[in-house]
Amino acid sequence: MPRLASKDVLRADQFTKDEIATVMELAREYEKALKEGRELNVMTGLVLSTLFYEPSTRTRLSFETAMLRLGGQVISVAEAKSSSASKGESLHDTIKTVEGYADVIVIRHPQIGAAQEAAQATDRPILNAGDGAGQHPTQSLLDLYTILKEKGTADGLTITLAGDLKNGRTVHSLALLLANFSVRFVFAAPRALRMPQEILDQLRNKAIAVQETEDLGEGLAQSDVCYMTRIQRERFDDPAEYDRLKDLYVLTREQVEAAKDGIIIMHPLPRVNEIATDVDTYPGAAYFRQSANGVPVRMALLALVTGRA
Amino acid sequence: MPRLASKDVLRADQFTKDEIATVMELAREYEKALKEGRELNVMTGLVLSTLFYEPSTRTRLSFETAMLRLGGQVISVAEAKSSSASKGESLHDTIKTVEGYADVIVIRHPQIGAAQEAAQATDRPILNAGDGAGQHPTQSLLDLYTILKEKGTADGLTITLAGDLKNGRTVHSLALLLANFSVRFVFAAPRALRMPQEILDQLRNKAIAVQETEDLGEGLAQSDVCYMTRIQRERFDDPAEYDRLKDLYVLTREQVEAAKDGIIIMHPLPRVNEIATDVDTYPGAAYFRQSANGVPVRMALLALVTGRA
Amino acid sequence: MPRLASKDVLRADQFTKDEIATVMELAREYEKALKEGRELNVMTGLVLSTLFYEPSTRTRLSFETAMLRLGGQVISVAEAKSSSASKGESLHDTIKTVEGYADVIVIRHPQIGAAQEAAQATDRPILNAGDGAGQHPTQSLLDLYTILKEKGTADGLTITLAGDLKNGRTVHSLALLLANFSVRFVFAAPRALRMPQEILDQLRNKAIAVQETEDLGEGLAQSDVCYMTRIQRERFDDPAEYDRLKDLYVLTREQVEAAKDGIIIMHPLPRVNEIATDVDTYPGAAYFRQSANGVPVRMALLALVTGRA
Repeated sequence: MPRLASKDVLRADQFTKDEIATVMELAREYEKALKEGRELNVMTGLVLSTLFYEPSTRTRLSFETAMLRLGGQVISVAEAKSSSASKGESLHDTIKTVEGYADVIVIRHPQIGAAQEAAQATDRPILNAGDGAGQHPTQSLLDLYTILKEKGTADGLTITLAGDLKNGRTVHSLALLLANFSVRFVFAAPRALRMPQEILDQLRNKAIAVQETEDLGEGLAQSDVCYMTRIQRERFDDPAEYDRLKDLYVLTREQVEAAKDGIIIMHPLPRVNEIATDVDTYPGAAYFRQSANGVPVRMALLALVTGRA
Repeated sequence: MPRLASKDVLRADQFTKDEIATVMELAREYEKALKEGRELNVMTGLVLSTLFYEPSTRTRLSFETAMLRLGGQVISVAEAKSSSASKGESLHDTIKTVEGYADVIVIRHPQIGAAQEAAQATDRPILNAGDGAGQHPTQSLLDLYTILKEKGTADGLTITLAGDLKNGRTVHSLALLLANFSVRFVFAAPRALRMPQEILDQLRNKAIAVQETEDLGEGLAQSDVCYMTRIQRERFDDPAEYDRLKDLYVLTREQVEAAKDGIIIMHPLPRVNEIATDVDTYPGAAYFRQSANGVPVRMALLALVTGRA
Repeated sequence: MPRLASKDVLRADQFTKDEIATVMELAREYEKALKEGRELNVMTGLVLSTLFYEPSTRTRLSFETAMLRLGGQVISVAEAKSSSASKGESLHDTIKTVEGYADVIVIRHPQIGAAQEAAQATDRPILNAGDGAGQHPTQSLLDLYTILKEKGTADGLTITLAGDLKNGRTVHSLALLLANFSVRFVFAAPRALRMPQEILDQLRNKAIAVQETEDLGEGLAQSDVCYMTRIQRERFDDPAEYDRLKDLYVLTREQVEAAKDGIIIMHPLPRVNEIATDVDTYPGAAYFRQSANGVPVRMALLALVTGRA
């Protein structure tokens, strides 16, 4: 098994295409083992510490499950804010302390760059589970894993990213990660919530075709994958603008039926109302499978960064 | 080992008498194994998720211990309210997510019917750890287990349920569960907090004898079991009525000494002041043993619903 | 392996010199096993319950890691206040309940004597993880372990305790524990935050030499160990007094370089600003190693009180 160049997982764009393939392949192997009920002892004797400065049941439980299913153990800080940080301790010092307890650390923090700062404080592997408006690389990897699993390959696909493309770290990271493949993007977003120019520039440099539109339907008609995100009223200066647009980005069963054959629908969850619940029974509604894919992908990452795989 | 008809544990009245016997027998077996320090690997490789939308140290720890003592692992959400739910996610979606992580889910929720709703969202077994004023079936099963263990059998017993019989889900469920045996009830409660007519009707349909009284002493004099619950001042419209009654439902050592020989005292805990602390040394004070019985009973339920027993 | 006289760990001054040696020796053994990656099954089948009425990530995670690294399992209450206690349950009743779930209990509580009260309620071993302004014995033992590990022995050492010596339970307990060895103390503190007379008397009774000063430099010049604690503005009636003194108790790299050769710097953490961060790279800066020493020391205590070592 090839090693990852870095023991930390901080950014979605840190991986070479080979490294991505390594993670995907190992995740597939672990998913198979889970399905067959095979017991894994890959992480026996190792302890993971989760350190969540923002609550996130989904991501925390997914990492904890991943560690336990590999035979490891977990110590968990679901609400780090209420503890040492409130006594004035720096993130550096907290990490220096936790490195005395755990072999690998998963951190979620409201500030951009916090995971990077944590990684600089310790030799233990740090996995970034979201640093504010920054990165959420394990989400992007599980998104990619989902696309590969549902569609067989990413190459040749047309992929719509829809909703709030300005503020969503998820769609930024995913776009950059998918730029390793021969994909074509449709970015469907209100003018006020367009994909940032910086991301568009990076994609152009990699010769990735991008089509921008305000009309989600335009994306649905031609895409193999539609990745929905939520639009929040508070993002708009002009409430009338929100009212004009909001229904355009609520995916209905009708729209799905009218979309390109075989389209899969993804969402990082939690969903509020941006996908109608009657879409859930559409066979291509992949968002709950996507969420479950977090377990094998995080198993792979945990095993790789600790050198156990 | 006979299987349970349902993989979910949602209501105390869902069980046939045979199923109840199965749970009790398996719980006894597990309790014996625990006493002998035998290691159990019944749940090896399985993960339990607790999901508590209301805090409950007792019930959560009891389930988590049960899972760990069977060789399983646990992911835990002690304060579910502060997480995904606060971002507007539906219970359905939360359960669809957690089913991707865990093999069995224990839920406590403030709303009646929440556990049922959770069970409809997933094929994973759901165990109801209390849904508001609704049901708390695992409490009733451990109550029954306690009676069987302390008295040998439930048949032929006279059982007093005392205190707030109107609002207590615990006493409602227990009354219905005990209706599977040849018991006789004394319901000792203030007029304002009487057992609901609906429960009385169900007991009459099963030909269970019920005597209602305001006088706890009347129950103590003739009962083999006295199950105390707390009366709260805020339940009374008339404070004078509360003052008149409150001491009648605080069990003293004196009252216990004057009660029927061999009477056992039970309480779902937490106790505030409704049982005087000098009752604790009375040999029939069973409430802490009752609490500890939660472990083997929940072990049995976890093993049965996952098909591991 | 000699047993401890008490199954509880409540006070730093409860241990005989032999018992201290037993704990230190076993901790060294466990530290070695951890370094070599040897799997330990000392606590297999046992469950630890942590019960924290005050948040403390450091101490809780340290105990949980210790238990997991010994092959045991953990049930965890990070915020006990929000649970049964808020429903009016007494500490006694909570402990009687938790003894039904766990084999050993670690408690942190804001009130002096709470751990003692817990120990009286149960036959399960209780480990005091801090009871308000009272004791924090496992901290003192890991402090001692650090001194022994860094300096080879405590005998013959001059040890400065600096900062707020009046209010810090850590320095009180450590002073009394070190009184088992041939040490000499320098107590460097503002007049208003002097070491309490009661502690000074106990040290005099044991013929331990003590020098009191307001000048931290005086301690640094002659000491083999400098143990820093934080001075808080709110401890001073006279703000001018605080302003006069505060910089005297902020340890700089310059001061460390001018101190006695080979001096080690300790701190119970969390640090706010009382040790400048450029001290971290000084080889004798032992505070993060000290924090990590909590794991083997607590492993030793857990194994000893449960009779597994």
